[in-house]
Amino acid sequence: MYALAIHGGAGVPPKDKMTAEEQAALLAALARCLEVGETILRDGGTALDAATRAVCELEDEPLFNAGRGAVFNANGEHEMDAAVMQGQDRRAGAVAGIFGPRNPVQVARAVLEQTDQVFLIGPNALDVARSAGVPFEGKDYFFTQKRWDMLQETMKLRKVGQESDDPARRHGTVGAVALDLYGNLSAATSTGGMTAKAPGRVGDTPCIGAGTFADNETCAVSATGYGEIFLQRTAAYEIAARMKYAKQDLIPAATYVVQKDLAPRGGSGGVIAVDRLGNIATPFNCNGMYRATVREGGIPSVAVY
Amino acid sequence: MYALAIHGGAGVPPKDKMTAEEQAALLAALARCLEVGETILRDGGTALDAATRAVCELEDEPLFNAGRGAVFNANGEHEMDAAVMQGQDRRAGAVAGIFGPRNPVQVARAVLEQTDQVFLIGPNALDVARSAGVPFEGKDYFFTQKRWDMLQETMKLRKVGQESDDPARRHGTVGAVALDLYGNLSAATSTGGMTAKAPGRVGDTPCIGAGTFADNETCAVSATGYGEIFLQRTAAYEIAARMKYAKQDLIPAATYVVQKDLAPRGGSGGVIAVDRLGNIATPFNCNGMYRATVREGGIPSVAVY
Repeated sequence: MYALAIHGGAGVPPKDKMTAEEQAALLAALARCLEVGETILRDGGTALDAATRAVCELEDEPLFNAGRGAVFNANGEHEMDAAVMQGQDRRAGAVAGIFGPRNPVQVARAVLEQTDQVFLIGPNALDVARSAGVPFEGKDYFFTQKRWDMLQETMKLRKVGQESDDPARRHGTVGAVALDLYGNLSAATSTGGMTAKAPGRVGDTPCIGAGTFADNETCAVSATGYGEIFLQRTAAYEIAARMKYAKQDLIPAATYVVQKDLAPRGGSGGVIAVDRLGNIATPFNCNGMYRATVREGGIPSVAVY
Repeated sequence: MYALAIHGGAGVPPKDKMTAEEQAALLAALARCLEVGETILRDGGTALDAATRAVCELEDEPLFNAGRGAVFNANGEHEMDAAVMQGQDRRAGAVAGIFGPRNPVQVARAVLEQTDQVFLIGPNALDVARSAGVPFEGKDYFFTQKRWDMLQETMKLRKVGQESDDPARRHGTVGAVALDLYGNLSAATSTGGMTAKAPGRVGDTPCIGAGTFADNETCAVSATGYGEIFLQRTAAYEIAARMKYAKQDLIPAATYVVQKDLAPRGGSGGVIAVDRLGNIATPFNCNGMYRATVREGGIPSVAVY
């Protein structure tokens, strides 16, 4: 049995503000990214490979807030965070605040596989990326007009003491969780953060147990949402702890954390999670979450609302 | 009831390598730092104040690896991480990789109290420190000959493919956990990291749920040890999860995590933890941990081995 779930972020534009064309483009992109990951699992690849590759595809797609298409911080710059974790031994790799590597998730993976560290920031994270042969890109590659316009609008609102109420501006992250044919779980997450975020702000994405988590004993989780609350609630690990100690199943555990733990505290967003039986949970507490799921022998499912 | 525990790091020199004079100086420093925190609690101050102030004292003391006396990274520089968390609402503040502020824990506190973020890195973390009026110091202030010599020795060993077997070189962190008269818990942790660490390496200290955690429902925890393993195991929150979901008491929960979860995986180190009843746990799985504890009406206890 293999299983794969991916997300392109929670908090989406209202239905009436998305054209049928836009929605079709998003669904097609999700289906394509899912297919890349599923092919790896079907061919006997590892959960870590499938999750990493699916996230690379999501990063390469400018529709989503990670890699190409990442949002701008308050200084008009990109600062990206990413993490990967494998469930068989809970080894993990994470980076925060990086700019340059085309696929931040590949840098997180290089930290996992090629260093003794778990979490790297600053120039050394980029050195690790270079040593690992991760391709770099310039500002032009990462620039998208849509994100730039979002930043200008957000800054204009902020000047008059307002914050945008568009949740899609608040968060937006991509991620994947996978179960492979060998029974191993893995999670990968990557983000540009929040539009107009404070420079140097680190969200939940690269923090193991908050935005990214994997343990064969319980589940693999990738989160997307208002990162500060996810950090305070150790959101991803909370789901695993409920499974491990309260003997809850994946879907009720993930649903509880998203709806009862995060939502009442302003932690808008969602998670994707998979357990070793191939169960998949995709709860969210806002108007939508770009997501796609597939299980061995099943038909891929793609959804926004 | 109030209660306070502090640590000056796990992994200490072997007994026969510490003179009676050195040991006396360490015990006196711990007693002094504990007293600073206890005075705040006795006078009706908050757990957050007591934990923060106790950690400031530990940072100011060059005997411990945080603030003044922080170890050097592989580039011969200081990069400091710190975090604080309060149990009543789980709000937290954290910084990583900073240099300049005399008391990194005060910067973490400023992130908690004066920003909308939880975790900041880079120049903006220093801007927040300046805005909060946190004093800055130069390289001379943070330099200690002992840490410099440790770096040279470690680098010399590394050149011939060896790593130092002195656990005190591997880790060293300071922290405090407190219960105040209002029933609130708080935790604070600060570190210079590992001697000769890779530049940009972030350990467990600033990661909420790994090295620092507080929740009135369960406990406050400050960890010290081989940070990568503590990150993988979400060590601090694991203790809270055992209390919350497996209904374990603080001391067995903390002891299990340190002895059975971390130790077998190479996660040498320890934690200090306090619950809302004022129970205190100080388990460690290496040869010693600088620590001191006190409960309302009790006699302070200070120990190394």
